[in-house]
Amino acid sequence: MTSMNKSPYLTNVWYVAALSTEVGTEELFSRTLLDTSVLIYRTEDGTAVAMQDRCPHRFVPLSMGRREGDNIVCAYHGLKFNCEGKCNHNPHGNNRIPAAAQVRSYPIIEKYGFIWIWMGEKTADPSLLPDFSPLVEGHPNSVGYTYMPRECHYELITDNVMDLSHIDHLHGDIITTRGQLSPKVPQIREGERSLSARWEWVQKPAMLIFNQYLSKPDDEADHFFDITWTPPANIQLSVGANQDKGALDLDHTVGQYDLHTSTPGSQNYTHYFFATRRNHIEDDAEYNEMKIKAMHEAFVAEDGPVLDAVHKEMGTSDLFSLNPVLLTSDAAPVKVRRLLKEMVKAEQENL
Amino acid sequence: MTSMNKSPYLTNVWYVAALSTEVGTEELFSRTLLDTSVLIYRTEDGTAVAMQDRCPHRFVPLSMGRREGDNIVCAYHGLKFNCEGKCNHNPHGNNRIPAAAQVRSYPIIEKYGFIWIWMGEKTADPSLLPDFSPLVEGHPNSVGYTYMPRECHYELITDNVMDLSHIDHLHGDIITTRGQLSPKVPQIREGERSLSARWEWVQKPAMLIFNQYLSKPDDEADHFFDITWTPPANIQLSVGANQDKGALDLDHTVGQYDLHTSTPGSQNYTHYFFATRRNHIEDDAEYNEMKIKAMHEAFVAEDGPVLDAVHKEMGTSDLFSLNPVLLTSDAAPVKVRRLLKEMVKAEQENL
Amino acid sequence: MTSMNKSPYLTNVWYVAALSTEVGTEELFSRTLLDTSVLIYRTEDGTAVAMQDRCPHRFVPLSMGRREGDNIVCAYHGLKFNCEGKCNHNPHGNNRIPAAAQVRSYPIIEKYGFIWIWMGEKTADPSLLPDFSPLVEGHPNSVGYTYMPRECHYELITDNVMDLSHIDHLHGDIITTRGQLSPKVPQIREGERSLSARWEWVQKPAMLIFNQYLSKPDDEADHFFDITWTPPANIQLSVGANQDKGALDLDHTVGQYDLHTSTPGSQNYTHYFFATRRNHIEDDAEYNEMKIKAMHEAFVAEDGPVLDAVHKEMGTSDLFSLNPVLLTSDAAPVKVRRLLKEMVKAEQENL
Repeated sequence: MTSMNKSPYLTNVWYVAALSTEVGTEELFSRTLLDTSVLIYRTEDGTAVAMQDRCPHRFVPLSMGRREGDNIVCAYHGLKFNCEGKCNHNPHGNNRIPAAAQVRSYPIIEKYGFIWIWMGEKTADPSLLPDFSPLVEGHPNSVGYTYMPRECHYELITDNVMDLSHIDHLHGDIITTRGQLSPKVPQIREGERSLSARWEWVQKPAMLIFNQYLSKPDDEADHFFDITWTPPANIQLSVGANQDKGALDLDHTVGQYDLHTSTPGSQNYTHYFFATRRNHIEDDAEYNEMKIKAMHEAFVAEDGPVLDAVHKEMGTSDLFSLNPVLLTSDAAPVKVRRLLKEMVKAEQENL
Repeated sequence: MTSMNKSPYLTNVWYVAALSTEVGTEELFSRTLLDTSVLIYRTEDGTAVAMQDRCPHRFVPLSMGRREGDNIVCAYHGLKFNCEGKCNHNPHGNNRIPAAAQVRSYPIIEKYGFIWIWMGEKTADPSLLPDFSPLVEGHPNSVGYTYMPRECHYELITDNVMDLSHIDHLHGDIITTRGQLSPKVPQIREGERSLSARWEWVQKPAMLIFNQYLSKPDDEADHFFDITWTPPANIQLSVGANQDKGALDLDHTVGQYDLHTSTPGSQNYTHYFFATRRNHIEDDAEYNEMKIKAMHEAFVAEDGPVLDAVHKEMGTSDLFSLNPVLLTSDAAPVKVRRLLKEMVKAEQENL
Repeated sequence: MTSMNKSPYLTNVWYVAALSTEVGTEELFSRTLLDTSVLIYRTEDGTAVAMQDRCPHRFVPLSMGRREGDNIVCAYHGLKFNCEGKCNHNPHGNNRIPAAAQVRSYPIIEKYGFIWIWMGEKTADPSLLPDFSPLVEGHPNSVGYTYMPRECHYELITDNVMDLSHIDHLHGDIITTRGQLSPKVPQIREGERSLSARWEWVQKPAMLIFNQYLSKPDDEADHFFDITWTPPANIQLSVGANQDKGALDLDHTVGQYDLHTSTPGSQNYTHYFFATRRNHIEDDAEYNEMKIKAMHEAFVAEDGPVLDAVHKEMGTSDLFSLNPVLLTSDAAPVKVRRLLKEMVKAEQENL
C-alpha cells in the first residue's frame, strides 16, 4: 500500500466520494480525492467499490479501461483486477500474476444518499461515520442532493457554514433574518469529536422560505439554527420557525435538516456536496426539484465566487498565518479549524 | 500595515494605478499592482481613493462588496470601511470594532490624466511625482490616453522606449526615420533621479506623422527625439521636425509630447499606459481619436508581441544574467536598468 | 556557446527536428526541442539550417524576423545573421559587429524524409545517425510520414513501441494478433548502441492490414515483429506475414518497415514522428494517403490519450521511483530505459 505519511489531510475518517446518483451501474467513475485519483464503480449487485485509479503496471487510469463482469480490464496491456483491486489475470508470457499486482482499494459505505470513502491507513471504522439518518427517513420528495465543485480550499467552505452570520450580508431576501442574526453570539457546544453552534432569534415576518407554511405568515416567529460539525468537513444544519412558543427543534417548527459536506480534491479545489430534507411539503416532486435547484443556484451565484476569490487572495490555506481580524462570529469556525488541525497532527504523529 | 521588505519593486515612488477615465463615479475598480490587489474608487466628491482590495477579516476582495456613500461594505459579513480603510461598522455581536480592522490605504494623486499611487512604507512624497504638465495644458482635443496590458516584465517596456533605434526595424512606414536614426549615438544626460537621451537627425521627407503639417511636405527636415526616464518606469518622449533651422524643441517644431509609463502587475505582467499631446491640429476631435487609436494599435500589433516573446524566451527578469550582446544603442536602457537596480537596493537596505 | 551541463537529455545524438515536408522554402520554422527554441529554415539552395531561435542582443525569437536571402534579420533592432548564426550586419552606431554576436547554430542532416539535428557540445558525428534507408528506397507512393505532438514524456512513447504486447488490448481489430502476441516472450538482442526485440507467431486469419494481399486471406499465416531501438528515441519496426514457410523478413513477407522516433520538447511534451513504408501496393497514391491517415488516427485516438493520462498520473519521468509492477513483456522497454539512463550519465560525467 502507498504510504500517506505526509498527507496534509485527516485520512482516518469518512469523506464523501460522490452522490449515490453520480455513480451509475455501467460506468467507471473517476474523481480526484485527497490528491489521489480514485475509481468508483458498482458491482453487478449494485455495491459501490473504490480503488486507486491507477494500474500498478504502467500507471494508466483504470477508468480508461473496461468492465468485465465485476472486474476491470486495464486499457493498455489488459491486466484484469477484481473489485478488491487484486489482479486476477495477466495475459502476458506465462500468465503468472506478480504478487505486487494489487491496486489499493478503499473501504466504502453507501449511506444517506452518499458514497463515503475511507482513505486512511488504519482499518476503516464504520462507527466514525456520523448519523445523518433524518436525511433519508422522510418521503423521497422531501429531500434533495447537489454537487458543487469549487476552486477553493475545503476549509473555506467549512468556515462559511460554521459562521452563519454571513447570510444577511451575502444572500438575498429569501433567507434573510432581517438583521436579527448578526448581533446574536451563538451558543457553542463542544463534543468529543464534534462542535455545535446554536442561534435563536425572533423575526417578522418569518424567513421567507418558511413563513407561508406558518399559520400567520406576516407575523413574527421564533427561529433557530443548530449546526454540528464532525470531522473532516461535515456540517449538519437544522433550521426552523414556529409561532406557538413550542420547542425550537425540527419536531416543533416548520424547518429543514441539511447536510453540507466537502471533500478536498487537492489543496486548490474541493468537491462540495449538499443535501436537504424538509418537514413540510413532503410530497410535491416539482416543488422538491425547484427547491434543491434554488439552493444550488444560491450557493453557486453567491457563496461560491466569494470563496474562490478568498482562496485566490489568501494564496495559502493557513488562515492564521495571515493574521485575520477575528470577530465574535468567528468563534465556531475558528474552533473547528483548531480541532481539525489537532486531529491532523495527532494522526501524523501516530503514523 | 503589511511589511513589503522583500518587494522586488521600487516602492517609495508614484506608479500609475489607472487612467483617470478608467475609474467612474459608481464603480469599485480593482487592479493588481506590485503583486497586490488594489481597490480604487471615487468618493461622492469625485476624489479617487485606494486601499488594499482585501477585507482584513476573511480576505474577501472589497471590490466584490458595495458602496454606501463613501464607505465600502464587505460582501461577505458586512463589515463597513471608510475611504481611508478604517472599519466604521461591525454588524456582529456587540458591534465592537476591533482595533486591527483597518485596511491598508494608499496615497493617491490624480494629475495629468492619471491616478498615481504610492505603495511604499515611507510617507508619500508629492515632490517625487515628475512634472508632466504639458500633457494637460493644451486643447482637450490635442491629447489622448490609452491602456495596454502586456504579458511581459515592465522593464522590457522601459528598454523598448529608451532605445528608439528599434523604430525603423519594428515599425511601419508612418514613423520611419528612413535609416537615419540607427547610426546616431544618442547624447545622454544624467540627472539626479533621471536619465535622458537625445537624437537629432535630418530626413527626407520628414516623418510621415508630421510632414503634411510642414510648409514643404516633400523636402528634408531636421528632427529630434528627446526622452527622459524617471523612476520607476516613466518615459517622457518629445519628438518634432522643422524646416527653418529653428530650435529643435516643441516650441519650434511640428511635434508631440508623449508619456510612456508602466506599472508591474506582477513579475509576469504589466500595466502599460500611454499619453500623447500634439502641438498641431489641436481642435479636431475626430483626428485626435484616430491618432490615439493608431498609436495604440501600432504598439499592440508591433511592439507588444515582440516584448511578450522576449519575456517568455528570457525566462527571467534579470537581463544581465543572460549575457546579452550589447550595442551602442543600448547605452540609455542599460543605464536605466542599473539606476533602477541601485534604487531598489538602496530602498531595501534602508528598510 | 551555451553550456548544457545539466541537460536531462542525451545530447550528443541526432534527434528529429521536423519532417522534411514541415519546413518550406519561404518560412522561418520554429520548434522547441530539448527545452530550447530552435529556428529552422532552408537556404536558397534548399539546404535546411538550424540555430537557436533567440537573438543574442535582446532575446527576440529570430523566427519573428524576416529573411534577406540566406540571412535572417531580427524583427526588433535589425541585426542580421547568416545561416551559420554569425552576425554580418549591425545597423547601429558605427556598424561594428560585436564578436559575441553569434547565434548558436546546430548541425543538421536531412535524410530519410526527416531533418535531424545535433544539439550536443561534441562535434556532430554523422556516423551516429542510424541507417533507415529502406524508408526511401521504394516508390514514393509506398511511404508516408506524420507528426503527432503529445503532452507526455518521450520515454513513455519509447515504452509504448518497445512493448508491442499492448496492441491486442489497446488497438482495434485491424492490427489484432487475436491473442497470439501477449503469451510470446520476445527474443532480445543487445547491440553496442541498440536493443532489438523479435516476436514470431501464427494467427488465423493473418493481420487484417496484410491478409488480403496474401494468397489465402482466410487461412493462417506466420508473422513477425522485429524492432530495434537506437538512441535517443528511434524505434525501427518491421512487421510482416507469409503463408509459404519462407523467411520471416521483409523480403519474404507482405509487410512494412516503420520508424517511430520522438524528440522531447520539454519534460512535459514530445514531438512524435512516424514513417512507414510498405512492400506491397506501392503505386497507389490514394491508398498510401489513406494508410498513413489511418495510422495517424489510431495513434491519436488510442495510444495518445493513454500516454498523456499516464504522464499526468505519474507526475514524474522517473518510472522506477514509482515501483511499477513489471511483466515479462516489459523486458525490452526496461532495458532501453536503463541503457538510455547510462548513456545520459556517461555524457554528463564526460563534460
